[in-house]
Amino acid sequence: MTRQELIEQIRIKRSFLCVGLDTDLSKIPPFLLETEDPIFEFNKAIIDATKDYAVAYKPNSAFYECYGPQGWKSLQRTIDYIPGNIFTIADAKRGDIGNTSTYYAKTFFEYLNCDAVTVAPYMGEDSVKPFLEFENKWVILLALTSNKGALDFQMIKDDNGEELFKKVLKRSCEWGTPENLMFVVGATRAEGIGEVRKVVPDHFFLVPGVGAQGGSLKEVAEHGWNKDCGLLVNSSRGIIYASSGDDFAERAAVEAKKLQEEMEEILLAQKFIL
Amino acid sequence: MTRQELIEQIRIKRSFLCVGLDTDLSKIPPFLLETEDPIFEFNKAIIDATKDYAVAYKPNSAFYECYGPQGWKSLQRTIDYIPGNIFTIADAKRGDIGNTSTYYAKTFFEYLNCDAVTVAPYMGEDSVKPFLEFENKWVILLALTSNKGALDFQMIKDDNGEELFKKVLKRSCEWGTPENLMFVVGATRAEGIGEVRKVVPDHFFLVPGVGAQGGSLKEVAEHGWNKDCGLLVNSSRGIIYASSGDDFAERAAVEAKKLQEEMEEILLAQKFIL
Repeated sequence: MTRQELIEQIRIKRSFLCVGLDTDLSKIPPFLLETEDPIFEFNKAIIDATKDYAVAYKPNSAFYECYGPQGWKSLQRTIDYIPGNIFTIADAKRGDIGNTSTYYAKTFFEYLNCDAVTVAPYMGEDSVKPFLEFENKWVILLALTSNKGALDFQMIKDDNGEELFKKVLKRSCEWGTPENLMFVVGATRAEGIGEVRKVVPDHFFLVPGVGAQGGSLKEVAEHGWNKDCGLLVNSSRGIIYASSGDDFAERAAVEAKKLQEEMEEILLAQKFIL
Repeated sequence: MTRQELIEQIRIKRSFLCVGLDTDLSKIPPFLLETEDPIFEFNKAIIDATKDYAVAYKPNSAFYECYGPQGWKSLQRTIDYIPGNIFTIADAKRGDIGNTSTYYAKTFFEYLNCDAVTVAPYMGEDSVKPFLEFENKWVILLALTSNKGALDFQMIKDDNGEELFKKVLKRSCEWGTPENLMFVVGATRAEGIGEVRKVVPDHFFLVPGVGAQGGSLKEVAEHGWNKDCGLLVNSSRGIIYASSGDDFAERAAVEAKKLQEEMEEILLAQKFIL
């Protein structure tokens, strides 16, 4: 999916919601465990219930890999099931050297046909660039994450007082463009989002941490907004585990709609939609 | 596998060789492509040919994932085939938040039953610690890698003149011990290995980059040695692709033996073995 197509979807859906498909067999309604492919059946119901409110889905590979080949089949079926006008993000946080990164890129961009994959920056340019060589595919690079451990290294300042996450932003802008590179910027550090926005005014951000992790949507928009919206805000648990009963899909729809309506207000206030 | 058992294997095999199983269908002998599971058949032949010279095997997950569920089956069969006295490393470079990292850990430590997994440090403590909670299992944390891009971020100095990779070493020593934590330290920067050794005198290093990437075994030993050897030196392409003909396994054995003999000399010179 191109940047222009993504922006168009945000206007059409009046939403910049990404739904995280962190599907955990220990949390899904027990009756689904009797089906042949419980993970896919759960995801299918969630997608059916939320697809009008979401512009992106983000399965996290950890939740699929741990079931081995069957988990990968569930992941593949899930991605195939997502409507073509919705942006698909493999939250895989991969990163390896040259040739090996190309194999990861092929996995997520060709084999699974995702639009985007999250990538870890620690190994630098030759670990990120191979992902950027696929047409209309995206790297979403970890920059400033929403977890406590983000403070361990991402905030380390160099002798000019510049934090590591800003170095990551600046260096990676030499590798990719706002057309094929986004950044993970956690919602739990709203001022941090503003700092990131100053360094990269044009790029889209994938923002986890709204809802269950405590970030506020309004603050995210206040600090992260750009002229093209520039935000994909993710919610996982708050939507997909809104209920553990038979009504899980209906409740997911309610929660997704609630976020979509909050987003619509922001989009209207910004005069991004009429 | 415990540290003591690993050290014992180094004495018995007179080797600290790790063979990297970066098995690429485009590089293996064409006759294998006609078998039902070419990746496994290749690995099986390589393992049979090299197991007397190696104390560890390291499949890189990228080369398996790209074939989807079938690739994961090949990976699983490969790990199951590796003799129990040989240390198994999933070179997966994973890293995510808390609960999600636990799922990755379960994948590699329980589902695949590897001894160790490589982990990326960018997200900090809560992305690494979940891997350290599994008994007799190991985290091998990226510290100073062997690629060109290592210079982008790993060498950034803070306002005290301390590089990021040293921060990673020091912080992570608060999370794990020499009994469950190793570091990836690239052979292409021999002086770098010495720098790392000064910070973490007791930990084992996984050292890629010898051979095809240009690192010298003698220099690695000179800078990285500690009282327990403290080194697992990896070679992938130099061994597994020593020949692309029918004699690939015999040639792999020859190359592995050559490295083992060089290692034996080092172990003798260090009086680690008699």
